[in-house]
Amino acid sequence: MSDLSHYRDDGAAHMVDVSAKDVTKRRATARGVLRTRADVVDRIASGDLPKGEAIATARIAGIMGAKRTPDLVPLCHPLPISGVEIDVTPADDGSGTVEITATVRTTGRTGVEMEALTAVTVAGLTLYDMIKAVDKAAVLTDIEVVAKSGGKSGDWTREGQA
Amino acid sequence: MSDLSHYRDDGAAHMVDVSAKDVTKRRATARGVLRTRADVVDRIASGDLPKGEAIATARIAGIMGAKRTPDLVPLCHPLPISGVEIDVTPADDGSGTVEITATVRTTGRTGVEMEALTAVTVAGLTLYDMIKAVDKAAVLTDIEVVAKSGGKSGDWTREGQA
Amino acid sequence: MSDLSHYRDDGAAHMVDVSAKDVTKRRATARGVLRTRADVVDRIASGDLPKGEAIATARIAGIMGAKRTPDLVPLCHPLPISGVEIDVTPADDGSGTVEITATVRTTGRTGVEMEALTAVTVAGLTLYDMIKAVDKAAVLTDIEVVAKSGGKSGDWTREGQA
Amino acid sequence: MSDLSHYRDDGAAHMVDVSAKDVTKRRATARGVLRTRADVVDRIASGDLPKGEAIATARIAGIMGAKRTPDLVPLCHPLPISGVEIDVTPADDGSGTVEITATVRTTGRTGVEMEALTAVTVAGLTLYDMIKAVDKAAVLTDIEVVAKSGGKSGDWTREGQA
Amino acid sequence: MSDLSHYRDDGAAHMVDVSAKDVTKRRATARGVLRTRADVVDRIASGDLPKGEAIATARIAGIMGAKRTPDLVPLCHPLPISGVEIDVTPADDGSGTVEITATVRTTGRTGVEMEALTAVTVAGLTLYDMIKAVDKAAVLTDIEVVAKSGGKSGDWTREGQA
Amino acid sequence: MSDLSHYRDDGAAHMVDVSAKDVTKRRATARGVLRTRADVVDRIASGDLPKGEAIATARIAGIMGAKRTPDLVPLCHPLPISGVEIDVTPADDGSGTVEITATVRTTGRTGVEMEALTAVTVAGLTLYDMIKAVDKAAVLTDIEVVAKSGGKSGDWTREGQA
Repeated sequence: MSDLSHYRDDGAAHMVDVSAKDVTKRRATARGVLRTRADVVDRIASGDLPKGEAIATARIAGIMGAKRTPDLVPLCHPLPISGVEIDVTPADDGSGTVEITATVRTTGRTGVEMEALTAVTVAGLTLYDMIKAVDKAAVLTDIEVVAKSGGKSGDWTREGQA
Repeated sequence: MSDLSHYRDDGAAHMVDVSAKDVTKRRATARGVLRTRADVVDRIASGDLPKGEAIATARIAGIMGAKRTPDLVPLCHPLPISGVEIDVTPADDGSGTVEITATVRTTGRTGVEMEALTAVTVAGLTLYDMIKAVDKAAVLTDIEVVAKSGGKSGDWTREGQA
Repeated sequence: MSDLSHYRDDGAAHMVDVSAKDVTKRRATARGVLRTRADVVDRIASGDLPKGEAIATARIAGIMGAKRTPDLVPLCHPLPISGVEIDVTPADDGSGTVEITATVRTTGRTGVEMEALTAVTVAGLTLYDMIKAVDKAAVLTDIEVVAKSGGKSGDWTREGQA
Repeated sequence: MSDLSHYRDDGAAHMVDVSAKDVTKRRATARGVLRTRADVVDRIASGDLPKGEAIATARIAGIMGAKRTPDLVPLCHPLPISGVEIDVTPADDGSGTVEITATVRTTGRTGVEMEALTAVTVAGLTLYDMIKAVDKAAVLTDIEVVAKSGGKSGDWTREGQA
Repeated sequence: MSDLSHYRDDGAAHMVDVSAKDVTKRRATARGVLRTRADVVDRIASGDLPKGEAIATARIAGIMGAKRTPDLVPLCHPLPISGVEIDVTPADDGSGTVEITATVRTTGRTGVEMEALTAVTVAGLTLYDMIKAVDKAAVLTDIEVVAKSGGKSGDWTREGQA
Repeated sequence: MSDLSHYRDDGAAHMVDVSAKDVTKRRATARGVLRTRADVVDRIASGDLPKGEAIATARIAGIMGAKRTPDLVPLCHPLPISGVEIDVTPADDGSGTVEITATVRTTGRTGVEMEALTAVTVAGLTLYDMIKAVDKAAVLTDIEVVAKSGGKSGDWTREGQA
């Protein structure tokens, strides 16, 4: 188990001091799934929902969400995000799922996993909001980091990922 | 399939006009799960993590997140939230999971499902942030509305819920 | 010239007390124009711009901007917005202009002119951002309230409006 | 017509990756005009308005608005702004106009045109808010970048500017 | 010692449910003092400070701060503020102090003491920021509620207040 | 009396241009005191308050508040905070006080005194909010910078500090 040096003895929550870390290019990709019904996925794909066009709205909300990460996650450091890409992909196999992936880049002292995860969850919540009038029982699920690069700990890819 | 009256013919995203809806007491409960390892769950429970005490931090982040819902989800209406309760419960059965539930109340014209879901996801992201130094492979999952009450559509409880 | 009762004698800026005003349904519509080149308007209409799809992005930014009005305009009262609709219309007459209109509704103690104007300007700034790589010389112009209804001062429509 | 390299093939909106760009000193100046009546301009100049002192309020709102740019404009990169100056100048020629100019500086990877434009528009909206009780028909207009410097594309001044 | 009904047995922080409380007109006034040197107070009064005009800037920051209260104070309820007045008064007696008072009004289910206190502290921090180049040793002090009215607990005035 | 070079002749508030300043490691520590009753301090220490656990909530609010400094204080520059530590210490001597200290670090062009002061005041306001149901007469007081290091002006420690 990894043990970090910046531990506070009293166990109190604090924003870890990263000023000794190097400024390097960093990238993280996260992913999540919205699970609903196949007919709802069709309506997402066609933009035929009570609140209107779903995919563009989710993508933009996710990009904006990435920028709000330090406002939401108390111990996250503010970071100068240098790029965000989000894909919202309705399954065309009748599985009733929509896959969301987000890649965030920075040149900074800490990684951007939380920014990528926040982008995915905010995009997912936005989709949820747009379909909840037609499916109360949707589930936002399997939100995880799939790859990261840069920083001292180096590159990492989740097992089973291409 | 439900069809709403406030549909825009061109399919453009918009914030649905709710001014004709009644102001009533409304409540929604959402739930989600952080899936990690059993030893990490023990450290969450004991507050023995690099960034410090996890449960209180997640709970407070979730409460604050609920209030930020209309800033994050583009088509959500701003609502005067009248109460938020969040429970963050590390499993003591060795399953390596932490359950998060949030109940949000309002007296307003629309429901608070999105606020409850946002509270759960922000609390979950906050836990993720606190454990990511000891578990890169955690998953935030099964985020869903479990019950809602108030408003024209009445009470609803997810199938299989007590 | 109209003179208001809530005047502070010393002329200091303050948020006027509106607690004696009635809660009524109110609506305001604002409009503005982005002036660029005809070839850029074609690229806006087709989504063929360096940053991607322009119209949906502008519309969503405008809706979110309406909700941020009291955070931006110091003396604006926070209001429970009950609906926002934005239209972003590229001219098809070769004039090189894009028209933006926004209608905002509330049930509250003050009007929503500022919310409608903020929606238009944020949508306009978002378009500007998306085209500035292909047109440095664009102009955001003619931003104005075109109609308002509700409240003590009653309905008003700008002269020359249909 | 300029074509950028960071184009996404599917045309989806994204925050362009700027991590390969140099960190340089950059500056942008934007300008806009509030068009109202001459008697209203006199009241702005003297601070004799229902909400109080207008010029200082607009200037401060504009400075704060510049800092909110990435929260408002979805595809804007967050930037460490290193300075903002705003001038709000009521015309003394009876034309019934107020000119607003903003200069924003940064040391970063992208320009600050959007920050300067946002400063001007937020200052303009703030003036609008302060005079709307005495002039419903005001117009915020001619908002444009007048000069920029720094970055790969070099210095640029709008034609016809000194 | 007062004991409230909405107590959670486990002692966890939560946003107390206020949905059973009446919507009434409420008002709170808070006060605080910035303690610096007499020559600095003279410069505040005259606007002759490195960052410029201090009093208007502090007043506007305080008004905007009042609106941000629920974003800052985790367990505060969002409230529709209906008015804010702030006075920033440099002492003319050579005591080297500046008094700040703020009155906030709402028609809502909870009081606005926290909004009034936040207005005072944000105005005070803003003054501090403007003088810190000329006085590192300033102190922001004696921040307290001086009066409140409305709600079930009724009117209250701090002992020793007029 | 110190006089700065970036003075605007007209005395207008502006965000001072810091682009010529060096990027260095900087640190600031601030402190403040909440003055209430001894029995209330006991309840803070034990978490036995109507809104629940007070110390963790105040600490997290303070950390988040530090990140919001440029949103609250108009002329503050946005800074990449690299660490925040907050201590909330109820006195055990029956004095009825709680001491709050915050240390903020950055690697940037300006100091972090305002961030440390904002952390202390937001933590203090959060405590105030949690005890106001049991003590209307609490006072938040003696908020001051106690030490700073880094930058051109060098290290500084308040007189009388260890």
